[in-house]
Amino acid sequence: MPNVLSHGQFETVYNFLSLVIASMLFTALFLLVSLPRVLPRYRQAITVAIVVCGIATYHYFRIFNSFTSAFVTPSVGGTGDYSQATGAGFNEGYRYVDWLLTVPLLLVELIAVLALARKVQRHLLVRLVPAAALMIALGYPGEISGDNGLRGLFGLLSTIPFAYILFILFTELGKSLEHQPAAVRGTLSRLRFLLLLSWGVYPVAYLLPLLNLSGADAWVAKQVGYSLADILAKAVYALIIFQVAKMKSYDDDPAFAKVELPTGEPLAPAPTHA
Amino acid sequence: MPNVLSHGQFETVYNFLSLVIASMLFTALFLLVSLPRVLPRYRQAITVAIVVCGIATYHYFRIFNSFTSAFVTPSVGGTGDYSQATGAGFNEGYRYVDWLLTVPLLLVELIAVLALARKVQRHLLVRLVPAAALMIALGYPGEISGDNGLRGLFGLLSTIPFAYILFILFTELGKSLEHQPAAVRGTLSRLRFLLLLSWGVYPVAYLLPLLNLSGADAWVAKQVGYSLADILAKAVYALIIFQVAKMKSYDDDPAFAKVELPTGEPLAPAPTHA
Repeated sequence: MPNVLSHGQFETVYNFLSLVIASMLFTALFLLVSLPRVLPRYRQAITVAIVVCGIATYHYFRIFNSFTSAFVTPSVGGTGDYSQATGAGFNEGYRYVDWLLTVPLLLVELIAVLALARKVQRHLLVRLVPAAALMIALGYPGEISGDNGLRGLFGLLSTIPFAYILFILFTELGKSLEHQPAAVRGTLSRLRFLLLLSWGVYPVAYLLPLLNLSGADAWVAKQVGYSLADILAKAVYALIIFQVAKMKSYDDDPAFAKVELPTGEPLAPAPTHA
Repeated sequence: MPNVLSHGQFETVYNFLSLVIASMLFTALFLLVSLPRVLPRYRQAITVAIVVCGIATYHYFRIFNSFTSAFVTPSVGGTGDYSQATGAGFNEGYRYVDWLLTVPLLLVELIAVLALARKVQRHLLVRLVPAAALMIALGYPGEISGDNGLRGLFGLLSTIPFAYILFILFTELGKSLEHQPAAVRGTLSRLRFLLLLSWGVYPVAYLLPLLNLSGADAWVAKQVGYSLADILAKAVYALIIFQVAKMKSYDDDPAFAKVELPTGEPLAPAPTHA
């Protein structure tokens, strides 16, 4: 962590952290209010999405407070830079505690919205959840280490469970997608790419300190990268899951669709068993 | 309690306490939102689980604040150690007040989800609840005593009601399990082992100061041990109770199962009276 941030660097991190709080909190509230808009069998997926955004809200409040305590503004007439006034520093640990809880839950969310047979669901979860937890746990020692070699090593180790998760999502889960209604098959398939894209931002942000950027620039870019990746991987992802749950609800039950959809609206794209 | 914690020791306790807050708070919220996912006759068990996680959230906020007030950071350029700057110290009493309320309720939760005949339920509760309260009350004098002999003595006394609780769970409760639906019998049986495992962490953490670890290491390990045990014994336990309540709901009422389960899903494992 740098000892000094310029005024612009401080404001950039400050505003991004606040943006994440607003995104997470109100995605959670939106989904909470919208829960009756999907059939009961899809509410577990949406409830998990609410919990994920809620946990992230809690941690971003903590991260925001940790950041504003760690860096303080100089007295009037000072240089305008923000420097570390206390020895407390910024607690990067909040991010890892957050990811340890939320990243496995993001996979639970995806599996839950598919509403697979219990046996298939269990088969996927016992593979995906431990791999996700391991991926986060292996990243932490590199993150807190000041040494770039250790950062690279643990980053590499953490990539092994990540690759395994992608393998499961694109092979075993791919088979299950064929049994999903036609209307959501495309969305679900794209959702895996959103997951790949947003989860891919984390390792890039993680490895920024290895580049020849100045300490403060790399650190600010890392905070912005983690913040944007969290919004994509949790809030935007949750809204797509909600969309899938709605479309599947209409497909499952034409009476529900009739109540929920605008009058005269034909059932979305092509219902498979209407 | 140690007078000085290293930066790493301080951060370890700090992040574990925050992890417990997030786990308890969002398990409580998850269950609150999910209450309609079980039949009314199982909602008492889930409501007690929500209350238990809520009480723990409250106490962990208190514990977190007590910890960060007790240990303060040095000025910039200091050694990086955290030392006790005030005479206030850390209030271990919060944990015992928490356990005095929540540990008897954890047993109420278990009995409630079984949905036994009222007479059997009363028979079990009048034995389990006072034993649980006594177990906690007997541990406290040892905890606050600086003397290892007293700590050992009260630890031993506290084990007597603990052994009695296990005896009831594995004999009298065992008989009731035979009348539970086949689908949940295994889960309920394993739940007793989770209880034994997670409750078993407390005496280990309690007795750490008796080992030849340095004061600060033993104290940090004790805080981490209590935190992990609380997550297992309250949050993970509550989620398993919720799972049992869902499975029993599906077993009791096929119409409810039809609404809640994926379309075309046969009733979970093997319904006993389908």
